[in-house]
Parts: sequence; C-alpha cells; structure tokens
Amino acid sequence: MSVTAPQGFRAAGVAAGLKTTGNPDVAVVVNDGPDDAAAAVFTTNRFPAAPVQWSRQVLADGRLRAVVLNSGGANACTGPEGFQDTHATAEHLAAELGLGAIDVAVASTGLIGVRLPMDKLTAGVSAAVEELSDDGGDAAARAIMTTDTVPKTTVQTRSGPGGGWTVGGMAKGAGMLAPSLATMLVVLTTDAVVDGETLQAALETATGVSVERVDSDGCLSTNDTVIALANGASGTTPTAEELTEALTAAATDLAMQLLADAEGSTKDIAITVRNAATVDDALTAGRACARNNLLKTALFGNDPNWGRVLAAIGTTDAAFEADQVDVSINGVTVCRGGSIGDPREGVDLTGRSVMIDIDLHAGEEIATIWTNDLSIAYVHENSAYSS
Amino acid sequence: MSVTAPQGFRAAGVAAGLKTTGNPDVAVVVNDGPDDAAAAVFTTNRFPAAPVQWSRQVLADGRLRAVVLNSGGANACTGPEGFQDTHATAEHLAAELGLGAIDVAVASTGLIGVRLPMDKLTAGVSAAVEELSDDGGDAAARAIMTTDTVPKTTVQTRSGPGGGWTVGGMAKGAGMLAPSLATMLVVLTTDAVVDGETLQAALETATGVSVERVDSDGCLSTNDTVIALANGASGTTPTAEELTEALTAAATDLAMQLLADAEGSTKDIAITVRNAATVDDALTAGRACARNNLLKTALFGNDPNWGRVLAAIGTTDAAFEADQVDVSINGVTVCRGGSIGDPREGVDLTGRSVMIDIDLHAGEEIATIWTNDLSIAYVHENSAYSS
Repeated sequence: MSVTAPQGFRAAGVAAGLKTTGNPDVAVVVNDGPDDAAAAVFTTNRFPAAPVQWSRQVLADGRLRAVVLNSGGANACTGPEGFQDTHATAEHLAAELGLGAIDVAVASTGLIGVRLPMDKLTAGVSAAVEELSDDGGDAAARAIMTTDTVPKTTVQTRSGPGGGWTVGGMAKGAGMLAPSLATMLVVLTTDAVVDGETLQAALETATGVSVERVDSDGCLSTNDTVIALANGASGTTPTAEELTEALTAAATDLAMQLLADAEGSTKDIAITVRNAATVDDALTAGRACARNNLLKTALFGNDPNWGRVLAAIGTTDAAFEADQVDVSINGVTVCRGGSIGDPREGVDLTGRSVMIDIDLHAGEEIATIWTNDLSIAYVHENSAYSS
Repeated sequence: MSVTAPQGFRAAGVAAGLKTTGNPDVAVVVNDGPDDAAAAVFTTNRFPAAPVQWSRQVLADGRLRAVVLNSGGANACTGPEGFQDTHATAEHLAAELGLGAIDVAVASTGLIGVRLPMDKLTAGVSAAVEELSDDGGDAAARAIMTTDTVPKTTVQTRSGPGGGWTVGGMAKGAGMLAPSLATMLVVLTTDAVVDGETLQAALETATGVSVERVDSDGCLSTNDTVIALANGASGTTPTAEELTEALTAAATDLAMQLLADAEGSTKDIAITVRNAATVDDALTAGRACARNNLLKTALFGNDPNWGRVLAAIGTTDAAFEADQVDVSINGVTVCRGGSIGDPREGVDLTGRSVMIDIDLHAGEEIATIWTNDLSIAYVHENSAYSS
C-alpha cells in the first residue's frame, strides 16, 4: 500500500515516455487533508538539482498538498531553464488539482545535465492525475525506480487513544547523503495529527539514524530528497516521541531495502563502531571503512582482511590508541589490541550479511554505518549506465 | 640503473622465499659515502607498520648507511613482536656491513597482520649483501615489486660547476598518502653534496607535488615510505633549488610510472583544478573527483559524465559558486557555468590518457591530482589478492 496506506492519501504512477524502456516514470502523491503539514530533508550537495531548489522553497511554510516525482531525468545542472521546467511541472499539477504551485513539491532522478522533455512530462502528470486512487501507492513506488530491481515500500501502524494511525512510505535508490548508485527519493505519509514543525524535527531524527547512515559507495547525489506529509485524517495525535519512533521505523525499513537492492552488491555490511569517544567519532570511523575500496573488494572476495579495516580507520581523526583497537568480523575477533587476534580462517563470509565490529576502547558511544561490497557487477553497471 | 646510477651506491635484489611465487623479495641499498645524509617521508596512517616506526626513529639524526626492503609481508599490525622483527632485520644487515643498526632503515610491503618468516628474511639479507654491486639497482627495483607488472626506476643527471651529479630512484606500488592498491615504497639516491636538513626539505617539496598527488583509489597504506640518501661522491654541491628540481623530476617520473601500472586500470586521469582560491581548495576538489567511484566507473566505460564531476566537487568546501564552474574533458567544455555546455558526444575517451579540467572561477591557484579509473580488473585483483 505504500504511501496510500494512511487515510486521506491518493497516488498514481504512469509511463510518460521519459524512460526509453517504456517503464513507469511519473508518480503523483496527493494529500486530501484535512491538514497539510509537511517536512523534508534534502541533499547537502552544493549542486542541488532544480527540483531540490524548488521543493526547498515551497517547503518553507511547512505545508504541501502534493508531490510529483519523475525518473528518467534528474534535471540537475540544467541552469535557469531547468529550474523553469521544474516550476512549470509544479504549476501543471497544481492546475490539474485546483491548487497553487506553492502546494506542490517536485523530485526527479536520472541522468544529470540533460533537460527534461516537458511535453511528455506534463502529459504524464495529467495522466497520473486521472489515475489517482487510494490504492495507487504501489504504482507510485514503481514509477520512481531507476536501477532498482524491486519497489521499496513500508507501512507502520500504531495504536492510539483515538484509534490507530499509520505511516506509509516509498523509496528508490540506495542511500542518502552518501547514496549508493543513484539518487535516493523517499516519500513518507501519515494520517497522524501533527504540525509541520514537529514533523520536521521527527523526520530529521528519523533520517539521521537510518538513511543517512547508509553509505553504499560514498557518492552524494544532487537530487536526494525525503519528504513527509501529514494530514491528521486519523484524528489521533501521537506524542513527538511516538511520531519519531514510527518515522524512524519506516525510514529504517526503507533504508534496509535500499541496502539489499544496491546495484551489483553481494554483501550487506553493518559496520558497528563501539566505545567511541563521541557518536561523530563512531560515524567517522565507520564511514572510513564504508568508503575504502580495498576493504570493499576484499569482502566481495570473502576475504576477512582486517588489516584493511585498521588502514581505513587509521586515516581518521577519531579518538583511539592504535594498540587498543579490536576488530571482529562475523563474531571472530581477528584483531586484538591493534595486532593479530584469532585466526582469520574462522570467519565465515559466505552469506550476504557481514557484521564488522570495531571496538575503539576510547569512550562509551556507539553507531552503525551500513554499506555494500564493491563488486564486478557494480563496476559493470555503473560504467554502462549513464546516470 | 635505478638507485645505483649515482656514484658510491651499491644494491642487490634476491629471492628469499617470502613470496610463494619464488620471485625476488629482498632488496638492499648501501651508501658507500663519503657522506651519509638521509631524509624520509612516511605514511600518515595512524597504524604505521613496524618498519615505518623503526625507520622514523633511525632517521631522526638525518643519517643512514643502508636500507633493507622486503616484499611478501608488510609487518603491519603485528604488535611489539613485529617491531622486534624489524629491529632484528636492521641488526642483521648492520652486522653484515659492519655498521650500527641505527644506520639502517627498513621498508616492507605485503599482507597486513602477518608475522614475517625471520629465518628466510635474514638468510635473504645475507644473500643480498653477497650480491651487492654498483649495477645492482635494477635487481633491487625488481625485488620490491608486489602486484606491479614492471619495475619502476628513474635516473636524473644534472651538470654542475664541479662536474655532473645524479639522482637515481626506484619505486613500487601506486600512490602515496592515498596509494592505489598496495604500499608505495620509494628509494632515491644522489651523489650530490647536501646536508640532511636540506635534503629533507627538498624531499618534502618533491613528494608534495608528485607522489602525494597520485590518488589512485583513495586508500592510505600503513607502510608508505620514501627515503632519500645522499653521499656527496660527485663533489658537486647543487643549490637547494637545483636539488629540489632534480628530486621533483625523479619523484614525478616514478609517480607517472606508478599511475600507468596501477592494478587493473585502463585510464590515467589527470584532474586539473584551476582558478581556485587556494592550492588546498584545488587539491580538495581534485581528490573528491579522484575518489568518486561513480565518476571512475563512468570513465572506465568511456562515458564523459560531467554531472558526476560536479556531484563530486559539490561535496567539498572548496570556494566556488555553483553557477560559475566550467568542466572540460579531453578539451571539450561539456559543462559551462554549472550547466550544460558543448555536446558530450564530442569527447573522445578511447585512449588511456584522460584530462579533466575544472575551472572554479574563484581565484588564481591551480593543482593537478592524478588517478585511475575503477575497472572490473581492479575489483577482480583486489578481491582475489590478500594484501
């Protein structure tokens, strides 16, 4: 059910011809109210795509009625003309729905540096509006796929004093702030009663510990967008904590789906850094591992090469003493005190799941970064696919 | 002639059985004087290997008589026992040559986290001493190879008032401070008359603009070592500028050989960032490109994907305005003012050499970073080879 699982949302996904494959490429999500609270998190890349620039502006008032998303073109690095294309797209959907353009966010994904074919796109938006329905969430999730092999959706239901409330969501891509292989787009919807400010705070907390800690290949897209819409249709007002918990569950569920579907990957790797002086130190050390090509190729080759773990964290400024660091891979402490630990032959790396545990012995904080291995299929896909 | 090109140096390379292939794996370089000035630059990794720790100590007085190098084992992350192994290696060579251990530097490369077979190593050192000759430079260069397909050597001759003087050198690996695929080891020799302090300053300048700007895969070894030895045998005293020029020429020659032989690479990529506010900004932007797997795979696929160049530099804090940046690839300005430039179809990427020119329009500084593409062969080699 995806984004249409909560009450009061309609969605659709159609094929507008932006993709040469003829697969669905335009999605629309509409919030039918009664409320129209909205929140968002965007890429920090200094070349934000036109739709990111647009959506940042219209989100300034914390309100949205609809989102239009397209695959088949990122509309990034396209100059003032590209921004005008995004504006026209929002205007077109707004006119179809009887709204103002300021009520409409836009998100795009695909090749950078190419203008969108606006005639096809606007015709697709009109077609999507025709198709809008309260079970259109799955079709919308399919229309935002690029190299994804499966659509990613989530539904989180919670009970409450005035009856239940629900968070629904859809995602494409594989990562955020350091996305894997293409832009990550996420739309979360909820029928909880919540104001825009509370929703924004909850969304930032939820993404901060989920999608932002997926670092599949260290590359940061120009188009990453996470949008949350809340309409209060359930009549239930969760506490900020309850809302944050449900959004975190939804975002984490989607993040793990992104990880599992990362292009060409054969491993899902969880790098946990414990006993760090600060959470930032733990994240820095974890990200250094997630971005180390020698470690990632070793894991692709089922090689528990703990030396590459140390070499990676040895480039960071995280607090630790070199002769105090322990590393275990899938439960075997292959490195103890920065030196040789238990035999690496004891490590079983034949499965998809890899757990690397790094104990810095420098404090009491802990964090996990999720990444993938660096495979031959990754290179093949990203050398053949212009994105 | 490698390191034995200057007067007053002997070298040798032998097979000691550290490598399972039976290829040469122990090299010795001896400075026969009259002077024994020495300088070095080491990895900044916080897990420096035992030989790096040792050599840093013995270099403290700016003097060295000999260097022993081995492939087939990095002796990194091997604890106090590993340090003792390095010490014993230096003691062994010193005894063979009638020196003190403090006169002997050690450098190692190979798998991290494994102890060296000391019986084989010391026997190999003795055998190398037997073989020492003033034309042993090429054999030494061959003995330090790991995944290198060819030995890397350089000879720079310079005329001077008291006759000519020469810089010789050898290298293995592919990079430094962010080496490509394995440790980079470099030994430079010269018969110029120079004190240790002047040599150190010249070496730092030379490596700073050459090997330190090769960033093949962003990974930083635990063992990177560049050692320079000067014996004054030519009787010629170059100025500091002349010495720096010759060392820079030698180090740059070796750096380009490392780049050309980087594991699995199909492209040598020079990323020049011009009109930057500072040299650091230019290096930061260049390195961000050199470490961007999506750009590197695109280039492997002969795709002039300038959007990935912008996405890469968009993650940095280098000074620039997004709508001011130009990018040309092999002479075609595919991006102008942060937006669409000349047609990408005009870019010819069929050759090995790729030149990416990024104009930040933010100042007057310029720097070049050299890197390689990310190929299927890179992944294959680094998933199969435990190093």
